[in-house]
Amino acid sequence: MYDVAIIGGGPAGVSAAVTLKSLHKNFIWFGKKALSEKIRKAELVRNYPGLPAVSGEELAKAFSAHIAEMGIEITEKTVTGVYMLGTHYAIACDKETFEAKSVILATGVEAVKPIVGELEFLGRGVSYCATCDGFLYKDKTIAVVCASKEFEHEAEYLADLAGKVYFVPVYKDANITRENVEIVRGFPTGVQGERKVSSLVFKDKEIAVDGVFFLKSAISPSALVPGLEMENGHVKVDRDCKTNLAGCFACGDCTGRPYQYAKASGEGNVSAHSAVAYLAGK
Amino acid sequence: MYDVAIIGGGPAGVSAAVTLKSLHKNFIWFGKKALSEKIRKAELVRNYPGLPAVSGEELAKAFSAHIAEMGIEITEKTVTGVYMLGTHYAIACDKETFEAKSVILATGVEAVKPIVGELEFLGRGVSYCATCDGFLYKDKTIAVVCASKEFEHEAEYLADLAGKVYFVPVYKDANITRENVEIVRGFPTGVQGERKVSSLVFKDKEIAVDGVFFLKSAISPSALVPGLEMENGHVKVDRDCKTNLAGCFACGDCTGRPYQYAKASGEGNVSAHSAVAYLAGK
Repeated sequence: MYDVAIIGGGPAGVSAAVTLKSLHKNFIWFGKKALSEKIRKAELVRNYPGLPAVSGEELAKAFSAHIAEMGIEITEKTVTGVYMLGTHYAIACDKETFEAKSVILATGVEAVKPIVGELEFLGRGVSYCATCDGFLYKDKTIAVVCASKEFEHEAEYLADLAGKVYFVPVYKDANITRENVEIVRGFPTGVQGERKVSSLVFKDKEIAVDGVFFLKSAISPSALVPGLEMENGHVKVDRDCKTNLAGCFACGDCTGRPYQYAKASGEGNVSAHSAVAYLAGK
Repeated sequence: MYDVAIIGGGPAGVSAAVTLKSLHKNFIWFGKKALSEKIRKAELVRNYPGLPAVSGEELAKAFSAHIAEMGIEITEKTVTGVYMLGTHYAIACDKETFEAKSVILATGVEAVKPIVGELEFLGRGVSYCATCDGFLYKDKTIAVVCASKEFEHEAEYLADLAGKVYFVPVYKDANITRENVEIVRGFPTGVQGERKVSSLVFKDKEIAVDGVFFLKSAISPSALVPGLEMENGHVKVDRDCKTNLAGCFACGDCTGRPYQYAKASGEGNVSAHSAVAYLAGK
């Protein structure tokens, strides 16, 4: 059982991690070794105090060096669910589950806006986890909305189970070679159904399916953590970065504007301190 | 008239300044070119993301280099009062007054706790400004509680006006050579009086005076800004770093724990964005 699980590898996650490490806490950190793609894409950051006029690539390098210097490890797994179990949290990653006494959400803002019906039908035909739920769709017809090339192997895993897969890549150069896969172009706008999902809707068409998988690295926090209170599309937190769930903290872009490195880093620090105070009070 | 006045040169002030500069705002920044003394005194900072295991001196150097690189100027004046004048703020520094549409308080935490009676008698025998109020005590008896050697010249200025000065240095190696100055050792615990100040109180003695000057670089925000709402000894702010006064924002240690560089830097950034939003809405 970890003291803390940090979810997300942007500046907020980095700040929480280096602070927990400096406080000698036992934590697990889910993210990518390449850190946040959004950092790397930034052209020029002028207002991160202490690192004047850095490119996103340089800032990411500085963060990576910091993490390496402290001997902090990043667990490269996509978290698909965070469940409060009374006294602690279960963190689901594909087929594995980890346990932690507290959780720091630093999931960023990219996926904050799910499409219409996505959250409503979560667990009733909508899934974020191929390896968890794939077997439910054996020989059935599914749609797989894929955010990036890195999830293509999960789509192939689903194709080996399902009868028919409509593959919807929202990036260029998709490459899936299973016979039962049909590539669909366009951006889906919603998920429809009655008790369960019955179709994936586009601007100009509707595809009848039994289920829809959304494969993406950042899942909306409200989908990730059942019961988490949101406000205007962001995780609702107080000045201590506390959410409505005891022991669950949030920081960085997922808590709202300004979407800035310094703000994210500051909240990561506050979240780490709040988690430590929470653990001390348990 | 400036868009923004930043008061304080710690990490919160630095972060607000570099952000306002990157947003091309017209601001004045009150602080010290040496930045915060507290930063320089830090032995080792391990959790400021991007600058692993830096000494306080190195962190201050990185901040100074950043400020220089952006061509930002620091105005080395001690602010003794911030007054909301309906549509804008007046910022008093010794004999000068500056005007700004909004204010960012980044005054740190060192002087957050005034002694008993200090705030109560402010303007009724207690003053923070030798050059503003000295003439009120011509030929009278005053006490001068001095926080640092750098204010000794102000004490000498007061000695030239007053009849008798009890000089109370709260540092070592005080050196005042006016004939009407008596050096008093010990830490004052309170200011007493009825309508006006009548004495400065110590643990073991009480000195009858007509007025008390507190010469220090960081004045409690509630003394600095009349009407500012405090909570548990800190400036009360919301998640946008807004105080109870329109156009007045606060960040860093003066808003509360954790007293951390990353947290201060994050709030400086948020304050700058909130000030810009406030100016846009005016």
